[in-house]
Amino acid sequence: MRTIDWVVGAVGGADGQPSPGAVVIVDQTALPHEVRHLTLTDVDDLVGAVRRLAVRGAPALGAAGAVGVLLAVQQARDEGWDDATLHDAVARVRAARPTAVNLAWGVDRVAARLPDGLAAVEAEARAVLAEDVTANRAMAERGADLLDALCGRDDQATPSGLRVHTHCNAGALACVEVGTALGVVRAVHSRGRLARVYADETRPLLQGARLTAWELAEMGADYRVVVDGAGPSLIARGLVDAVVVGADRIAANGDVANKIGTYPLALAAARAGVPFVVAAPESTVDPATPDGGSIEIEDRDPDEVLTFAGHAVAPPGARAVNPAFDVTPADLVTAIVTEARVVCTAQGDRPG
Amino acid sequence: MRTIDWVVGAVGGADGQPSPGAVVIVDQTALPHEVRHLTLTDVDDLVGAVRRLAVRGAPALGAAGAVGVLLAVQQARDEGWDDATLHDAVARVRAARPTAVNLAWGVDRVAARLPDGLAAVEAEARAVLAEDVTANRAMAERGADLLDALCGRDDQATPSGLRVHTHCNAGALACVEVGTALGVVRAVHSRGRLARVYADETRPLLQGARLTAWELAEMGADYRVVVDGAGPSLIARGLVDAVVVGADRIAANGDVANKIGTYPLALAAARAGVPFVVAAPESTVDPATPDGGSIEIEDRDPDEVLTFAGHAVAPPGARAVNPAFDVTPADLVTAIVTEARVVCTAQGDRPG
Repeated sequence: MRTIDWVVGAVGGADGQPSPGAVVIVDQTALPHEVRHLTLTDVDDLVGAVRRLAVRGAPALGAAGAVGVLLAVQQARDEGWDDATLHDAVARVRAARPTAVNLAWGVDRVAARLPDGLAAVEAEARAVLAEDVTANRAMAERGADLLDALCGRDDQATPSGLRVHTHCNAGALACVEVGTALGVVRAVHSRGRLARVYADETRPLLQGARLTAWELAEMGADYRVVVDGAGPSLIARGLVDAVVVGADRIAANGDVANKIGTYPLALAAARAGVPFVVAAPESTVDPATPDGGSIEIEDRDPDEVLTFAGHAVAPPGARAVNPAFDVTPADLVTAIVTEARVVCTAQGDRPG
Repeated sequence: MRTIDWVVGAVGGADGQPSPGAVVIVDQTALPHEVRHLTLTDVDDLVGAVRRLAVRGAPALGAAGAVGVLLAVQQARDEGWDDATLHDAVARVRAARPTAVNLAWGVDRVAARLPDGLAAVEAEARAVLAEDVTANRAMAERGADLLDALCGRDDQATPSGLRVHTHCNAGALACVEVGTALGVVRAVHSRGRLARVYADETRPLLQGARLTAWELAEMGADYRVVVDGAGPSLIARGLVDAVVVGADRIAANGDVANKIGTYPLALAAARAGVPFVVAAPESTVDPATPDGGSIEIEDRDPDEVLTFAGHAVAPPGARAVNPAFDVTPADLVTAIVTEARVVCTAQGDRPG
């Protein structure tokens, strides 16, 4: 089952009738306690699902952008929208979240086929989904090769396998399938070379404790959840062989925007001489963004910080700031792995 | 009202009768929703309160050690304990938590008066409490002076006042009164020079969101709670003028053990050229500990990470590691402020 897909003949929508096509997603707000699928036949339901992170992760957002355009075109046909209404709907999908370049990328790629009609749009959206899976598989193998090269290919440097630290969820749940950073972990595991994964819980929304832990359990990996403040000292104590994370946007110079809490891992890895590897598809690289300073950082609802699993944790009247992402400067990034290449960022190579 | 005190004539214990003397603490597990006092007349109730963090913070643990010995001596008299039973009770207080040197320090200081009888023990325990308050007041003023010197004494460098980042709770609730790091913040605030405090929520037990936010609200400071992963990037983005934290143990070379999540702030501050200041009483400095590598790091219950308010956040069967402290190397510590001196650690001065 894909994390996000376009399904014909699914039942959904307000009237519960079979629809010609629908976006079906795994509702990630229900994990790890329940695997719940949502069938979306209205563009604004998809926009809402993106906003409340029912679908999240940069590559999955690219897919959401792609099928969002398809959904809009289908809805335009079925509800008799004029061109302005259709373009407004496409714009709403594109603007659902500001930081991930993939969302706009997915929208723009499929929207380019709008003049060619529904069938062309559907073919393009399906191609985006299929290419994501193919790209993830290539990235996973390339990343596992890179870790072998950085940490010791044979069993001498790391006799019992690699201890990998990761942050947030850059897994199958963040993509269509496989995953980016967790796809690399998956490949290391399938080679029999994975000793352990330390997974940051990733406050405020706990994608690590909820989603990454769930994926690691599904793949049978040895893992430990840790609070976000613990990662840097685990690295300093020599308990981590490599840090592997995803990315939400990569600037032309190699600065990496990723989930808040990524930057401290990069600082600790650099001080400890531990490789810090970013695994992300080429669509995450934004040549139009010269460096991290140009990346808009999404500020999310303070209540995500002031509550924990629905319970108020701070005193009444407390205020919070809730930046969703941080920027890791290129000089702290050992390498960026994509489906096509390895960019040795810390050595001055530029991805964009 | 003190966070921890010795009160004669309080009502408590199993029979609800007035006791000759009792330890009265603010139960910090009930904050910020309720200010609840606990009256403890049994040594093992005090040990339990220390273990479940109803009383916590290095200086308050020193006070708990002091009044713990007093409580044991009173109980020995009232219940006819022999010397071995008394010494076992004192040893249980001393071992209630392993990392904070202050607990053992408070126990040892008061236990040295055991041969002199109850009155001498009580006088010594009361002296420990009084000296903590005096020390905190001196440390607060010295720390505020230091921040003036480091960040610009006049209004030119920081025209609207200082923006301070802190972690965990090193406030009045971590001491008898006033606070260490938050005592410094309190002094800056009373000088009219505090612009804002960023308070890390401090997972897993949320001392920042619960306790520091409560204290900052009480003092009328402008503050924002942030997730632990956010601090380093706020520092990198130029939003912080100084980081001020407490300490649980300071090694002779200036390495600082403090609540997990402190080290990433030090890494970020060093990279950004922002002062990283540790405020702690002299009793926190342990000359017998040569460096951070010799500090035992308390590993706490994994369920603190895997659950919140009784609700599981990770999938069934998930495992966690839960180190309570990390070690910040001396070269990342701009200065250590005590009630007696400023030690310029990053310049090679040694506190112990």
